[in-house]
Amino acid sequence: MTDKSATASIFIRRESDARSYCRGFDTVFTSASGSYLKDAGGREYIDFLAGCSSLNYGHNDPDMKAALIEHIAGDGIAHGLDLHTDTKSGFLTAFDEHILAPRGMDHKVMFTGPTGANAVEAAMKIARKVTGRNDIIAFTNGFHGVTMGALAATGNGYHRGGASAPLNGVMRLPFDGYMEGLDSAAYLEAVLKDASSGVDAPAAIMLETVQGEGGLNAASADFIRRVAALAKEHGALLIIDDIQAGCGRTGSFFSFDEMGVMPDIVTMAKSVSGFGLPMALVLVRPEYDVFGPAEHNGTFRGNTHAFVTARVAIEKFWADERFQSELVEKTTLIHTRLSELADLVPGSAMKGRGLMQGVDVGSGDLASAICARAFENGLVIETSGSEGQVVKVLAPLTTSKETFTKGFDILMDAARAVIGEMADTKIAAE
Amino acid sequence: MTDKSATASIFIRRESDARSYCRGFDTVFTSASGSYLKDAGGREYIDFLAGCSSLNYGHNDPDMKAALIEHIAGDGIAHGLDLHTDTKSGFLTAFDEHILAPRGMDHKVMFTGPTGANAVEAAMKIARKVTGRNDIIAFTNGFHGVTMGALAATGNGYHRGGASAPLNGVMRLPFDGYMEGLDSAAYLEAVLKDASSGVDAPAAIMLETVQGEGGLNAASADFIRRVAALAKEHGALLIIDDIQAGCGRTGSFFSFDEMGVMPDIVTMAKSVSGFGLPMALVLVRPEYDVFGPAEHNGTFRGNTHAFVTARVAIEKFWADERFQSELVEKTTLIHTRLSELADLVPGSAMKGRGLMQGVDVGSGDLASAICARAFENGLVIETSGSEGQVVKVLAPLTTSKETFTKGFDILMDAARAVIGEMADTKIAAE
Amino acid sequence: MTDKSATASIFIRRESDARSYCRGFDTVFTSASGSYLKDAGGREYIDFLAGCSSLNYGHNDPDMKAALIEHIAGDGIAHGLDLHTDTKSGFLTAFDEHILAPRGMDHKVMFTGPTGANAVEAAMKIARKVTGRNDIIAFTNGFHGVTMGALAATGNGYHRGGASAPLNGVMRLPFDGYMEGLDSAAYLEAVLKDASSGVDAPAAIMLETVQGEGGLNAASADFIRRVAALAKEHGALLIIDDIQAGCGRTGSFFSFDEMGVMPDIVTMAKSVSGFGLPMALVLVRPEYDVFGPAEHNGTFRGNTHAFVTARVAIEKFWADERFQSELVEKTTLIHTRLSELADLVPGSAMKGRGLMQGVDVGSGDLASAICARAFENGLVIETSGSEGQVVKVLAPLTTSKETFTKGFDILMDAARAVIGEMADTKIAAE
Amino acid sequence: MTDKSATASIFIRRESDARSYCRGFDTVFTSASGSYLKDAGGREYIDFLAGCSSLNYGHNDPDMKAALIEHIAGDGIAHGLDLHTDTKSGFLTAFDEHILAPRGMDHKVMFTGPTGANAVEAAMKIARKVTGRNDIIAFTNGFHGVTMGALAATGNGYHRGGASAPLNGVMRLPFDGYMEGLDSAAYLEAVLKDASSGVDAPAAIMLETVQGEGGLNAASADFIRRVAALAKEHGALLIIDDIQAGCGRTGSFFSFDEMGVMPDIVTMAKSVSGFGLPMALVLVRPEYDVFGPAEHNGTFRGNTHAFVTARVAIEKFWADERFQSELVEKTTLIHTRLSELADLVPGSAMKGRGLMQGVDVGSGDLASAICARAFENGLVIETSGSEGQVVKVLAPLTTSKETFTKGFDILMDAARAVIGEMADTKIAAE
Repeated sequence: MTDKSATASIFIRRESDARSYCRGFDTVFTSASGSYLKDAGGREYIDFLAGCSSLNYGHNDPDMKAALIEHIAGDGIAHGLDLHTDTKSGFLTAFDEHILAPRGMDHKVMFTGPTGANAVEAAMKIARKVTGRNDIIAFTNGFHGVTMGALAATGNGYHRGGASAPLNGVMRLPFDGYMEGLDSAAYLEAVLKDASSGVDAPAAIMLETVQGEGGLNAASADFIRRVAALAKEHGALLIIDDIQAGCGRTGSFFSFDEMGVMPDIVTMAKSVSGFGLPMALVLVRPEYDVFGPAEHNGTFRGNTHAFVTARVAIEKFWADERFQSELVEKTTLIHTRLSELADLVPGSAMKGRGLMQGVDVGSGDLASAICARAFENGLVIETSGSEGQVVKVLAPLTTSKETFTKGFDILMDAARAVIGEMADTKIAAE
Repeated sequence: MTDKSATASIFIRRESDARSYCRGFDTVFTSASGSYLKDAGGREYIDFLAGCSSLNYGHNDPDMKAALIEHIAGDGIAHGLDLHTDTKSGFLTAFDEHILAPRGMDHKVMFTGPTGANAVEAAMKIARKVTGRNDIIAFTNGFHGVTMGALAATGNGYHRGGASAPLNGVMRLPFDGYMEGLDSAAYLEAVLKDASSGVDAPAAIMLETVQGEGGLNAASADFIRRVAALAKEHGALLIIDDIQAGCGRTGSFFSFDEMGVMPDIVTMAKSVSGFGLPMALVLVRPEYDVFGPAEHNGTFRGNTHAFVTARVAIEKFWADERFQSELVEKTTLIHTRLSELADLVPGSAMKGRGLMQGVDVGSGDLASAICARAFENGLVIETSGSEGQVVKVLAPLTTSKETFTKGFDILMDAARAVIGEMADTKIAAE
Repeated sequence: MTDKSATASIFIRRESDARSYCRGFDTVFTSASGSYLKDAGGREYIDFLAGCSSLNYGHNDPDMKAALIEHIAGDGIAHGLDLHTDTKSGFLTAFDEHILAPRGMDHKVMFTGPTGANAVEAAMKIARKVTGRNDIIAFTNGFHGVTMGALAATGNGYHRGGASAPLNGVMRLPFDGYMEGLDSAAYLEAVLKDASSGVDAPAAIMLETVQGEGGLNAASADFIRRVAALAKEHGALLIIDDIQAGCGRTGSFFSFDEMGVMPDIVTMAKSVSGFGLPMALVLVRPEYDVFGPAEHNGTFRGNTHAFVTARVAIEKFWADERFQSELVEKTTLIHTRLSELADLVPGSAMKGRGLMQGVDVGSGDLASAICARAFENGLVIETSGSEGQVVKVLAPLTTSKETFTKGFDILMDAARAVIGEMADTKIAAE
Repeated sequence: MTDKSATASIFIRRESDARSYCRGFDTVFTSASGSYLKDAGGREYIDFLAGCSSLNYGHNDPDMKAALIEHIAGDGIAHGLDLHTDTKSGFLTAFDEHILAPRGMDHKVMFTGPTGANAVEAAMKIARKVTGRNDIIAFTNGFHGVTMGALAATGNGYHRGGASAPLNGVMRLPFDGYMEGLDSAAYLEAVLKDASSGVDAPAAIMLETVQGEGGLNAASADFIRRVAALAKEHGALLIIDDIQAGCGRTGSFFSFDEMGVMPDIVTMAKSVSGFGLPMALVLVRPEYDVFGPAEHNGTFRGNTHAFVTARVAIEKFWADERFQSELVEKTTLIHTRLSELADLVPGSAMKGRGLMQGVDVGSGDLASAICARAFENGLVIETSGSEGQVVKVLAPLTTSKETFTKGFDILMDAARAVIGEMADTKIAAE
């Protein structure tokens, strides 16, 4: 397509080689609605990536869209630093009423710079300030961002290497289920109890309940509870990084709902604005809300447009149980269809939970080939895991049953085709 | 005002104590246009803060507004990760044509997470990766953000203290004019030449040409050129952090235009979207564009809405010389009116250049009292500097002569009133 | 005793509170010979501490003593920086002939500052220089010294706390047998293979084969071999810290002899001078001997007096098999007698191997009470382990069977007395 | 000389390439007395290096020698950990009576591992523990050792590079006289007062009064006093590293005597044993003696042999004024003779003070050529400074006038010869 190439050339000529997703999904996207993306050539794609879980309510939700247009048209504040605005008030009120209060959470809401990494940086700093300790315990295969503080907690070696400098202040422990035969919580307990283990008393223990980038490793509620108890026992804060797994992704607003734990700090970003707009926040128990005015600051720490859509998202999807109850069904649907994929690939394993499930197909090459083929056939879907070995479904939570079915059909066709070709190649080689 | 209090209570109850500007400007803002903010009570304020230089083209510029509404109404992409989109292409093309190409800059554009701190983090990582060295030289009173990597380069002790952990990887040198009798560039040269100085060969030398947060300290072109030459001689990259001083703030698009230097890396944020939307970028010479795909990544690294407004901003204000030539006049106006303020305060000093000027009134208490009084009278204006001793004017660049005059009149009245009261108090005390 | 008190007062008045052993063994020692110490009051003590394994050949060995006196009397060099001296030549020749050559070791000998910590610091720096990597993998309960580089590798929380600063550059993994059910080598393998584990590719893996300070934890030969293989596979150096376990302490000159591994680097100190004089060295494979002249230096890096006695020690004890074969017998004797102690304390466990054995009596208070009682009865013996829960025997290797018997008799009497009193106290309390 | 080569081969074959002084002074030394060294070939050398100031009382002082032999012959303790011994008591008593008490110093004496680096590591840890702060301010061209903590404070780039890792926890400021026109103390004051300078409130300010390795840069008493006052004002400890400049080297026992300052911590090593034996200590004001028992420990932290000779050194040389008054004369002699050298070399400069003086001859090549020629003629003398550009005289303080004269005659002959040859070469080239 000539048009595409012409347009694309500006990216090649001027955009940094750090660009990434555009390489696997090599077209120019122009519009999107619900679970569908459209490119410059008019082609439609089903979106099983959802901005890496930033579009849990789909693209351009009509209610959020209307509210945002009304706000802009009425000269609503676009940039407000951390001034009081009616839009921030609107968001806080809705978040208080529908999310925090029902859970008995008295956490304060801190608006950091509107990226997940920034929320993580703030959380780590808070934990250090509260405890006077330095080390944060993070886990194998965790992902928390790539700024220097957050990157120290991130497990991925490729991203870590980008620092080109030592990453300090984090002690690494094995995540739940990391190694056959290893009780990860028992090991954590052992090193914390042992005054000579070399694992210093930590400022915080920080984890994702489901490691989205790390390969959809889902911790058990039991593990989370034991970690929470150990944090408390050893004077450390419990930080749950719910940036990818939060906002309904696992089937409830917080990924730790109904686990019987209450984190001291929760980090949120991605889908919190509802509309894909940059927004991040840190929930922190009031007794640990220790930053002085602007001690952790940032120019965009209140993205007012995001407050508008975030309020609508909360009011529309979380004011009652309807939305959440639909997620149960969809979880089953996803599990069923991914099981078909798993059945297709010997040695594969189901991963994740809720609406962040996937299949570990055993090799990054295979997972990547399946996703590439699916894209050719109109499905945007990505891999995750240390070797990219997991085919990961992160569709909008609002995806209809029909669209799910279409998407999974494309995925299964792609998988069958790729596996078939691989078998042919193997036979030919013999 | 009862309404205000009722609304405000949600902030006190739920927003973190880290909130800051809302303390000095204690009202609830609801709309804004051009150089004016309006609050819930219908009161108008002239804005001499401009989102800390994030609103260089004023609030809700009608052309950007129209383009953004059109984009949203048409289901344009809201969140696109770093996929190719028509809006990103539009921005890059405009930025290439009107900003980079005319200056002969072949820099690549890297879209980092949409905060200045994130751009700085990326810049520091690039410099370390390119050189294999660890230390970044930063300067007294510099401000580069509060995430752990950037915070190491930030001079402000209050922000540094928020880390509650050592901040490594930065060597601190004196900024231009830091101390009477000290030739800061000569000192930099001495420690770099001396193999035993304890200042290791740096990965980069990073500076603002005008230190916005640090007190409107403006480096001379000569200083910048000597620093650039030393960076080159010693194999270090030159990073100019143009987050606050860029986008026309000093009178030209880049604050280093016409200084005879070409930075290896430029960081931009704040006004780059034109509309106050979160957006940040790193300009990097192609030979130093060393990150692999997603090696430095982030969910919001392409804020598509911001691309829409940023393109309009470039096309509207920087396609020809008209806008820039207006800035010359405004610079003079600002200087003239601030000189009146300086004349009022014995021992005060003019600071800054272009449209980021201010007056060092010698004490943080005095500066703060003047700004508080101005706010009472309908002017939003802030202080800067290590003790908050500088009254800083950061009005939208698009502010009309009339509005400037009104604003400065309020400021002068406030200054006279505060100084008068202080004199009265002093007399009474005698 | 009046004399003792008078003399002791200078220590209380002028010596830093950091002093330590003198608190448990509160007398003033004046002379020593073989396995016996004598105090100012003329009382003799059997020494089961041996300068923490610095006196493996006993106090004032007559042959070393004679050689040293002859050297001093003849105006032999006392301080020679790292100049060539006849005494250094003598030591190197003996060490080459009797230690390195017979084992096929082509390692270079680096004389660092004469402390174990300094040898460890040098070893860590070498590994980083060779590999260009930063992290050293060290193990739970390891002890490697208290200078900042070495302390990062030390596990003990009390010592780590003394830094009052973060200790960077070390990743902590579980030692062999650290936790029931955990295959420590398999875990090490897992994190090294996993590109997303957050355990970066290490510069070195450093360990003691028997953790002397950490509680006499003895690694199996199988564990050491697997660690060695993993180090090789992952491009990391293998550092064996043989400071406490070397020089015959485990029954052979190196503690890893006959384990089927060849470390890239070995650190030695403590008994290497033979006479208790400060001396340390680093053995490094020639291809990793990467320091330039004086790149790691130190004023006392060649303690000439120590070279004199170290040469005699090598020639006297290691020129043939006799000494080593005696150690087999002594190992058995120690094991037998310590088993009696273990039988006495329910739940206790035998620890260590060779002539660094002990009994974990389950509580630091009990271990400490036993050692205190033993001292009253003329035996110097210490505890080790994270809670000081291990009664540790580190007698001179040259201790005669008779003296061992006397010493163990005192120890058993002390243990019986302490346990008896505890039982009485318990009965009385009931 | 065949013998020399044969012996030397063991060094080449087995000693690490890190060996250094033996390269410039390539012979095998066998004995030494007073200010003279003798090699295996029977040749005598005048020693103007004195073990880098570790042999301030010359080689094998007869009184120390006799006391040490008597101690060894009588089975005195050779290794005593930090147990109380009569020898430690003897040293402490003498040090108290003749050094501390007369100066009104109530400092506690901490025996660290017997190297200067270890004393510096302990001092830095104490300062951090006392203040709860992290950064130590150290100066350009300072030298404090090469273990990771101390190395961070050392300025020399070659040694720093040996770390192959970032060196954290130190902020670098300019030493007195570092740059023409720069008032170094005023700059220190400015950054400490400025809350936004980026120089954090330090745990300590650490300096040498004369930078021995850094080029014999002598700070003025005024500078030291201003630094001391700033340390006090800003809650930082003042650490004077007197390892090279102490023990009479500058003409008084401490290099800061009569400067009107009292350091909170003093580090000593090198000549403190008097005999060249490894020994180091930290003097610390009692209120800052904060280490718990063994919190900073080390096997050789009490080198008993060194206590024996150190006691004799104190009693022989510092019990009255005689020795010190001789140093005045010798200082003049050295200055006079070095001035001759300075006159010989255009553009050269006198450096240092007391008995650590030298001449900056402007180039490392020239300084090195002069020292090499002097060695050929029987004088051991070394260079210092960042480029090795300073010919440094560090003779034993006990050197007689006659020997000084002989040594300087050799030095002047060497200088004249080298300069003459250079002139010839230059003429030939023209």
